[in-house]
Amino acid sequence: MTSNNTLREWDHIIIGIDPGTNVMGYGILGVKSKKPSMIAMGVIELNKFESHYLRLSRIFERVSMLVEQYLPDEMAIEAPFFGKNVQSMLKLGRAQGVAMAAALSRDVPIAEYEPRKIKMAITGNGAASKEQVQEMLRRILDIPRENLLPQLDATDALAAALCHFYESSRPQVEKGCKSWKEFIAKNPDKVKKG
Amino acid sequence: MTSNNTLREWDHIIIGIDPGTNVMGYGILGVKSKKPSMIAMGVIELNKFESHYLRLSRIFERVSMLVEQYLPDEMAIEAPFFGKNVQSMLKLGRAQGVAMAAALSRDVPIAEYEPRKIKMAITGNGAASKEQVQEMLRRILDIPRENLLPQLDATDALAAALCHFYESSRPQVEKGCKSWKEFIAKNPDKVKKG
Repeated sequence: MTSNNTLREWDHIIIGIDPGTNVMGYGILGVKSKKPSMIAMGVIELNKFESHYLRLSRIFERVSMLVEQYLPDEMAIEAPFFGKNVQSMLKLGRAQGVAMAAALSRDVPIAEYEPRKIKMAITGNGAASKEQVQEMLRRILDIPRENLLPQLDATDALAAALCHFYESSRPQVEKGCKSWKEFIAKNPDKVKKG
Repeated sequence: MTSNNTLREWDHIIIGIDPGTNVMGYGILGVKSKKPSMIAMGVIELNKFESHYLRLSRIFERVSMLVEQYLPDEMAIEAPFFGKNVQSMLKLGRAQGVAMAAALSRDVPIAEYEPRKIKMAITGNGAASKEQVQEMLRRILDIPRENLLPQLDATDALAAALCHFYESSRPQVEKGCKSWKEFIAKNPDKVKKG
């Protein structure tokens, strides 16, 4: 159990969520002096609940608890935009919805990332396997091997949080200048005439 | 504003929800001595919010307020099982998810009905138009014409609540007897021998 006192050490806390209707992964990332570290990670097992509503209720309850416990500044969610069929997307949307409600009800802003984007940010390969993502995360965040969980949903969630950290700390491209041509047109004084 | 005192008059209260990402309809149905009546209905306008998250946040906030205000015993939700494409189903699932979270976080059980089933229960025609549903509801619940809203999402939500009332008050078919053949096999004493 992490107390609120030790949480004050961090400059910024991001909760990562990998929502699913069977297992939901979560990862808590702390940032201090621009350096990211793992605070916690785990899974919410939903298989034991037969009813769809009990599962949704459990997601809301547990994500609410995590938000209250770790007081994250932001939530990063792994969100596939395509799925097998409309029925599975509706179910996934509901699972995402209740997890988001837990953040929204406490005014925690949400950012979502496609699985491919997360894999690319962590491993440099958008088609990396879950095991490869886990191994890179372990190295980047210096996680002892014995702290890794058998469920890869936990590292997937932590990867979403780390991807969001990378995205938000990346230097922003100057607004309105999408090309050199545009830059030159807007900043004629900065161009050396030949 | 309905006070908690006047709400005590009702034996049972059902909140009906017609979730959408542009407009969400709601209807509050009160039951007294097995007779259903409209307590309230309305819409939650979401068009004015550009961000998807602001819309979801607004749904959670408003549905939570309705649950706190009317203390419903159950929630009935209109839930299409098929949609145009996976993207629209994901968005719809999220909207349903946050509305459901508002009920689940206050231990309100949820029942869901397909639009066709609701139309059939109210008008006797599964392919009825929204206008026909509204007109039948107006007659059944004796709603003055001036109380009807221009948005048909409100009557659609009230129709979901009324459909749930009909479903829950319908005499249950004896369990395990799906056919006359089965009934006869299980109740040989009730069969007149020729």
